[in-house]
Amino acid sequence: MTPPPLPHRVTVVEVGPRDGLQNEAGVVPTAAKVAFVNALSDAGLPVIEVSAFVSPKWVPQMADAAEVFASITRRDSVRYTALVPNLAGLARAEAAGVREIAIFAAASETFSKKNINQTIAESLATYRGVTDQAREHGIPVRGYLSTCFGCPFEGRVAPDKVADVSARLLDLGVFEVAISDTIGVAHPGQVGEVLDAVTTRVPLSQVALHLHDTRGTALANVLAGLQYGVTTFDSAAGGLGGCPYAPGASGNLATEDLLYMLDGLGIETGVSLPKVVAASRALASSISHPLPSRYLQAEGARKQERRVRS
Amino acid sequence: MTPPPLPHRVTVVEVGPRDGLQNEAGVVPTAAKVAFVNALSDAGLPVIEVSAFVSPKWVPQMADAAEVFASITRRDSVRYTALVPNLAGLARAEAAGVREIAIFAAASETFSKKNINQTIAESLATYRGVTDQAREHGIPVRGYLSTCFGCPFEGRVAPDKVADVSARLLDLGVFEVAISDTIGVAHPGQVGEVLDAVTTRVPLSQVALHLHDTRGTALANVLAGLQYGVTTFDSAAGGLGGCPYAPGASGNLATEDLLYMLDGLGIETGVSLPKVVAASRALASSISHPLPSRYLQAEGARKQERRVRS
Repeated sequence: MTPPPLPHRVTVVEVGPRDGLQNEAGVVPTAAKVAFVNALSDAGLPVIEVSAFVSPKWVPQMADAAEVFASITRRDSVRYTALVPNLAGLARAEAAGVREIAIFAAASETFSKKNINQTIAESLATYRGVTDQAREHGIPVRGYLSTCFGCPFEGRVAPDKVADVSARLLDLGVFEVAISDTIGVAHPGQVGEVLDAVTTRVPLSQVALHLHDTRGTALANVLAGLQYGVTTFDSAAGGLGGCPYAPGASGNLATEDLLYMLDGLGIETGVSLPKVVAASRALASSISHPLPSRYLQAEGARKQERRVRS
Repeated sequence: MTPPPLPHRVTVVEVGPRDGLQNEAGVVPTAAKVAFVNALSDAGLPVIEVSAFVSPKWVPQMADAAEVFASITRRDSVRYTALVPNLAGLARAEAAGVREIAIFAAASETFSKKNINQTIAESLATYRGVTDQAREHGIPVRGYLSTCFGCPFEGRVAPDKVADVSARLLDLGVFEVAISDTIGVAHPGQVGEVLDAVTTRVPLSQVALHLHDTRGTALANVLAGLQYGVTTFDSAAGGLGGCPYAPGASGNLATEDLLYMLDGLGIETGVSLPKVVAASRALASSISHPLPSRYLQAEGARKQERRVRS
């Protein structure tokens, strides 16, 4: 009955400024984004996905990607990354001084078609050009793989399919595959099933988990991932985000909630939870709805309670 | 790296009508409570904590306990229980035809004083009278033990203290101790620590977990509990509730979120998730805020999305 040992240290990849904000209906001012990224840097997050060099026509929220990169205060200890869909995006990213990028494929054909209007094979062919050029220019590439635990159009996705596309991303030269629960349907049993399949093709050290808390299972899935030996987890400060093309998807796993559990488990991250809370609070005024992080809401309730009692 | 085997079947104890509603500021009409309990019965929940026979002066929301019990449609397969603080409460409960009760002690002295104005020893002396009489009358008694993972006034609570009060509850004759995370601070590592201590004094088969999702960790804690071999979990439909005396406590683990994970893990409960969703939706109009269940909110978003798209 003893649970498996957990890793001593975990890398938290902060995706709030990109995967979080890109799903916000109202455009967030560039200065607020810059302040958000800087505050997240201050909090000790080792990797921050800052923006995306995608078409402003499709994702207006990311139109200021170059401006954000030009304005943030970069720390040597932090990797500032950007999402890039194609060679044009890579060129814009490089011009903006981006030194690490991410590409995004899907494990579900229907989702790939609806999200990026390409079949999986077509998307990988596009990315071949991107990863070849990135390699030449010494730019590491991360690979997201969406809908690994379920697709809003196809339902269940076969773990072998997830493993297959993961392996093809690795063939392109990505240093890590972020196995993503785009619509937040995963349960902990599935985490083991999918990781069993993926790790037949990709070394566990190159696998990250990117979870959404849509149905409240994100931290249970993190626990299952930790027990499996996964040491890289994506999250978004405040629980921002989701996916605009995935019905019902609401909210990345909140960085605050993830850190609260990791801190409790004695797993080192190098990140300050109070500073992440401060970063989210500062951003909150630029967002039209309450941030969904449970931890953040609980801290807010405590503060209010203290005011009422004092 | 193989996770421990999980139980095949779990008992879900529905506490929404009592632990959930007692924390609502606005009084919920008796008819809405009756309909809620009946809908939860229809959903297949095997145990429903219907109300509390406490002083209406302290908890006005529970003033209609007898009326609710008189009006619900009882099924033979369901245990309808009530919280009882003392012999007067037991007398009222028996007069209302209640056939199973629960008592509530705390693992933290300060919380005991603030919550029920008695030391732990004083409360156990009071309960001695209740459990003796209940035994004479053939009424099974469940014991809640609050603040097992942390106290809003004392902070960390020693697992040995939790084990000690659990054992004293068992001495009183309770058939089960619900180890409760009153303020929702537990993390999965603590679940193992506390259960290690408690099970030196109480058989695991008599231990239930009562978790709150205040900081998003409830389902991760359920997973840790399942891996430990716990087979009884409390939850509240819609994620209702919390504790009015515990700063920052917001929301029991939602029955919907718990069922979504248990269903995914293939663990039998005999409960219909869609029917619990329907029960929560029907109650929602009597509540002044959105119900916090993540699953419920995701399903709401999907429904809305379908309307927008069609």
